[in-house]
Amino acid sequence: MALLSDDRLFPAAPAQRELARGLYEHIKDAPIVSPHGHTDPRWFAEDTAFEDAAKLFITPDHYVFRMLHSQGIALEDLGVPRADGGAVETDPRKIWRRFAQNYHLFAGTPSRMWIDHALQDVFGVEQRLSANTADTAFDAINEKLDSPAFRPRALFERFNIDLLATTESALDDLAHHRAIRDSGWRGRVITTYRPDAVIDPDFEGFLGNVEAFCAHGGGCVTWDSYLAAHHARRAMFAAHGATATDHGHPTANTASLSQAEAAGLFSEVMTGRASPDRRELFRAQMLTEMARMSVADGLVMQIHAGSQRNHSDWVLARFGRDKGYDIPQRTDYVTALRPLLQEFGRAEGFHLILFTLDETAYTRELAPLAGVYPCLFLGPPWWFHDSYEGMMRFRRSVTETAGFYNLAGFNDDTRALCFDPRALGDVARRVDAAHLAELIVTGRLDESEAGDLMQDLTTGLARRAYKL
Amino acid sequence: MALLSDDRLFPAAPAQRELARGLYEHIKDAPIVSPHGHTDPRWFAEDTAFEDAAKLFITPDHYVFRMLHSQGIALEDLGVPRADGGAVETDPRKIWRRFAQNYHLFAGTPSRMWIDHALQDVFGVEQRLSANTADTAFDAINEKLDSPAFRPRALFERFNIDLLATTESALDDLAHHRAIRDSGWRGRVITTYRPDAVIDPDFEGFLGNVEAFCAHGGGCVTWDSYLAAHHARRAMFAAHGATATDHGHPTANTASLSQAEAAGLFSEVMTGRASPDRRELFRAQMLTEMARMSVADGLVMQIHAGSQRNHSDWVLARFGRDKGYDIPQRTDYVTALRPLLQEFGRAEGFHLILFTLDETAYTRELAPLAGVYPCLFLGPPWWFHDSYEGMMRFRRSVTETAGFYNLAGFNDDTRALCFDPRALGDVARRVDAAHLAELIVTGRLDESEAGDLMQDLTTGLARRAYKL
Amino acid sequence: MALLSDDRLFPAAPAQRELARGLYEHIKDAPIVSPHGHTDPRWFAEDTAFEDAAKLFITPDHYVFRMLHSQGIALEDLGVPRADGGAVETDPRKIWRRFAQNYHLFAGTPSRMWIDHALQDVFGVEQRLSANTADTAFDAINEKLDSPAFRPRALFERFNIDLLATTESALDDLAHHRAIRDSGWRGRVITTYRPDAVIDPDFEGFLGNVEAFCAHGGGCVTWDSYLAAHHARRAMFAAHGATATDHGHPTANTASLSQAEAAGLFSEVMTGRASPDRRELFRAQMLTEMARMSVADGLVMQIHAGSQRNHSDWVLARFGRDKGYDIPQRTDYVTALRPLLQEFGRAEGFHLILFTLDETAYTRELAPLAGVYPCLFLGPPWWFHDSYEGMMRFRRSVTETAGFYNLAGFNDDTRALCFDPRALGDVARRVDAAHLAELIVTGRLDESEAGDLMQDLTTGLARRAYKL
Repeated sequence: MALLSDDRLFPAAPAQRELARGLYEHIKDAPIVSPHGHTDPRWFAEDTAFEDAAKLFITPDHYVFRMLHSQGIALEDLGVPRADGGAVETDPRKIWRRFAQNYHLFAGTPSRMWIDHALQDVFGVEQRLSANTADTAFDAINEKLDSPAFRPRALFERFNIDLLATTESALDDLAHHRAIRDSGWRGRVITTYRPDAVIDPDFEGFLGNVEAFCAHGGGCVTWDSYLAAHHARRAMFAAHGATATDHGHPTANTASLSQAEAAGLFSEVMTGRASPDRRELFRAQMLTEMARMSVADGLVMQIHAGSQRNHSDWVLARFGRDKGYDIPQRTDYVTALRPLLQEFGRAEGFHLILFTLDETAYTRELAPLAGVYPCLFLGPPWWFHDSYEGMMRFRRSVTETAGFYNLAGFNDDTRALCFDPRALGDVARRVDAAHLAELIVTGRLDESEAGDLMQDLTTGLARRAYKL
Repeated sequence: MALLSDDRLFPAAPAQRELARGLYEHIKDAPIVSPHGHTDPRWFAEDTAFEDAAKLFITPDHYVFRMLHSQGIALEDLGVPRADGGAVETDPRKIWRRFAQNYHLFAGTPSRMWIDHALQDVFGVEQRLSANTADTAFDAINEKLDSPAFRPRALFERFNIDLLATTESALDDLAHHRAIRDSGWRGRVITTYRPDAVIDPDFEGFLGNVEAFCAHGGGCVTWDSYLAAHHARRAMFAAHGATATDHGHPTANTASLSQAEAAGLFSEVMTGRASPDRRELFRAQMLTEMARMSVADGLVMQIHAGSQRNHSDWVLARFGRDKGYDIPQRTDYVTALRPLLQEFGRAEGFHLILFTLDETAYTRELAPLAGVYPCLFLGPPWWFHDSYEGMMRFRRSVTETAGFYNLAGFNDDTRALCFDPRALGDVARRVDAAHLAELIVTGRLDESEAGDLMQDLTTGLARRAYKL
Repeated sequence: MALLSDDRLFPAAPAQRELARGLYEHIKDAPIVSPHGHTDPRWFAEDTAFEDAAKLFITPDHYVFRMLHSQGIALEDLGVPRADGGAVETDPRKIWRRFAQNYHLFAGTPSRMWIDHALQDVFGVEQRLSANTADTAFDAINEKLDSPAFRPRALFERFNIDLLATTESALDDLAHHRAIRDSGWRGRVITTYRPDAVIDPDFEGFLGNVEAFCAHGGGCVTWDSYLAAHHARRAMFAAHGATATDHGHPTANTASLSQAEAAGLFSEVMTGRASPDRRELFRAQMLTEMARMSVADGLVMQIHAGSQRNHSDWVLARFGRDKGYDIPQRTDYVTALRPLLQEFGRAEGFHLILFTLDETAYTRELAPLAGVYPCLFLGPPWWFHDSYEGMMRFRRSVTETAGFYNLAGFNDDTRALCFDPRALGDVARRVDAAHLAELIVTGRLDESEAGDLMQDLTTGLARRAYKL
């Protein structure tokens, strides 16, 4: 039996399912446009083989190891590296077996569907993972990984990826992106400017980061050279293909200080002794500064707001960031974005794409904002909400007020399942087909209109919002 | 092909659809009871022809022009009047063409369904709006508007409107309502007392408004004459048919100050220098005062809370209020309403109807409050939520805790589509039929009970809640 | 005609309904495991007959009398006892008639389904309640109540209850539980440690409660003897079968004070003059203390947070607590629980079960927290959300992030319908079957997996989370 049903995610009522199937057929093989994600450009620069099934599926994927951990499995036993270099499990087969024998934990989760998709579609594994099938699957995957057809570039081409954006720190030298470009390989892998490490005073090593960063803007650590460094680095990122910036902030707060106030705040923050409120104000002001630069240089601005990062100090100390201990929090947009929108909400050509982890904002704030401000687009459901139910809730919630054309289309946001953005994209395409079928069958859309919308949702809206 | 499917908004599963169709059949031609809305009483007083299709569908309808504006079309190009009298597009055909060639933007929105309903049902236009069909539709509509059958009173009668409530400022002299009454026309158009302009210290011209208002209560600007003016105006509105008051506040806060404290606060607010907190407290106290008067004079009280009005200062300065830049915000009810409910929650005959733009309050606060306080009724889903999905969410969320009989039934809240409350009412009737069919098919309601409920939802609950 | 359809709560689409039916068949007669509720242990200790239909269905059930009251019926007229001993209706037939003639108010509510279930399944009453059928039903029920087969223990056995947990105050002497044990009856009725009366400074009689309580810990009212009293009482409750504690707090706030600070705060609170903030901090610190004790003694900890109790002072003064005037409020978990989780989130064997009245926390905070912290489990939808739509929302919201195995399974939380936890359990079993069928039909779960999950959802998850 196949792991995946051909009709998965389509609605149950037969007439509606038929409509969804038809819409999906038209675009299921369309190229992948992936304007936001977290894959490693090194893969495509060096094009060396992935190591093994555990390093591919488990160790780097916080969706996967957080679930196993929630049931009492130690992160060490899953091979998650320790920040202090302490010992962790290194035998990939043992790690894989732990995962496989607990695979039932993923029932009902999107991870299960993504993994099944990769197993079946990429590796030809068609048996449900379990203690019994663990070794067979492990061996099958590892054997494939050894072959040239499973190198990063080969997969990129096989997956019909038209464009893939990665996300790099403002401090990154973009060596991998340069190497990709210089290699003559024709795959389009572009970067994205992500300056959190030099904007967020609570980021690890912030003061040192800013000192290093200011070297790009004139050297000394002043507000002017700091802004100049942003200008310079944004230009350098754009030269490496970037069409966008990305900002991961705990809130969506923005501010509109005078430049004199902002300079004073910068000095205060650089003492390392600014209060939490002042540090938050600095982040807020910097979103407005980034918007100002976007208006000037045309880079699309993305805000990913609302995660309370590193909820467990113990886990942060022992394993570092991004270990599944990031928990969403209530997030305001209507008041938070107002200072920025007052200044730039109508600026010609400015694109600001909003993401949220607080679904209550969909109908209350985000759709009403995107449905009136010319600069605003809504990013697709993010992180925990990048799932069948999450996607359906998003579509049913925002479309009525924002329509389809204030959406930024599809993002895969891939980190660990880097080798198959198709798994994620396929879910989104199926959900779009299901949603459009729902609109048709309830008389809210003509069948003749749905085909164009399906195309737009698959690639058109993303190309437009991200200026690709 | 017709613009509208006969089975629109009915559920997909055949047995369920059949039930919904049957329930809808019984009430689809029932008269319209419209106890809350924003139509212009001048129409019915003067009964002159509407000017043209653009002035009917686009210029006054913030649902319509905000969507076009969100995609970069200037409000000026849609003929939206400037506050400073600056030039805007005046050619209705050009405005209409801009609208028609961008009509795809409305796919999936309730505006699209309302407009299609009006086009097909009122004007006999059966082709989807587009660049190609723009002129034909424009001419067809304008031709109809010239004929006597499309005058306001004729439409009112054709639409089988039993009662239509408008909403007037406390400062309004109700001349149009008097004219309607004196004309001998038998259409029931009643007013509603809306005192925001003299209650909200942040309202444009508040101080002057209150000075003018106090003339109705004894002349001098004191707390006593201010309250006396409210008494007098409420009585005058009631004499013009009003059965209700309406209060549009940023929050649902209420207060229970002593009369001495309230008088002091009034004096402070009238200096024009009260702090934001004190201005909010004044609004809060005034809700309680309005409740006290409702207990005395029997007028039904409505609270529409939770809009952050005029989000863009630039748009407010250039075009004035109600230009689509009103964005919902998180809104508390459980704490906010407590002072008022402590005093009047059990008062004999007192009706308080609550509306929200924050859907999270449905199951958490509003249904539990309405399910216990005798005075409370829940108004239908409002503004952005007055849509298929919004209505279904409301029904599925509140009914389980509040039942059907703590609801205030249907409101159309019409402003621009004034000429066809049927378009909005028809959506609500279909959604009610769909919801009841869902309850029946899942064994939560008997088919024999559903007929009575369908009647109540269509007109009975509104008549009862609004004391009509 | 039967009151209940055999297929109630199953999905409409035929293939999906068939799947749900099949899943339900397997477990519909499984024993009831009820690890949390509010039945009276006296019933099982004394095993005397229930008095009459009104005392069974109406007077003690706030779900029922709040709805009648919301439509203007005085609580006195429903026989709800007055706190001051004032006169209320005492004729059960009159009370029952008021209820029956207003039974239409319950259309669409879960109470209606529970009551119909009890009427039909327990008492053999198969006519819809109404003014016409009131007396027949009343007489039929009362006749049954007189017979030995309707005594509490007989019903317990007939209902196939494997285990029933009650909830007692920390001040309770557990005499009824001792009597049950000493009686030799084999029904498993266990207690739960609920110390709100000695932890919440806003609880009626708090200071006196703590004084009495400290007698169990050494006598004098000090922080040390107070903690010792908790230790002693927890051990005594465990000896009477308790496997869990339960904490009903207005918020989920926790704190991590030093023991010296906590002792100081205790002294301050015991003056009776601590500020609201300090009283809240005491509750917060005590949740952390309870977690510390749970880590030591193995009792499962439950937090039921987010109710603003006794919203009407008048009703509280006249009728006392638990009169339907408890209204949910916005509730934060991500920040609130952090102090406790920092200390005990990874503690071996610690189980913390979270409940909420704020559904917005499902996808935003609760599922992400439970999906990573080993100690956390999510309790089933609680109170107002313990309904068909509420249960479906819960399942669709939390499963994608938390999976099934971070859930605590089913609770009935029964208070008044004590005689039939089957009515509530049956709804949950049907909704689980419907949800699993939805996952299967959309290709998110294999049919072969669903059977095991159905078993786990019915009893397995509850047994595991509650350490039964």
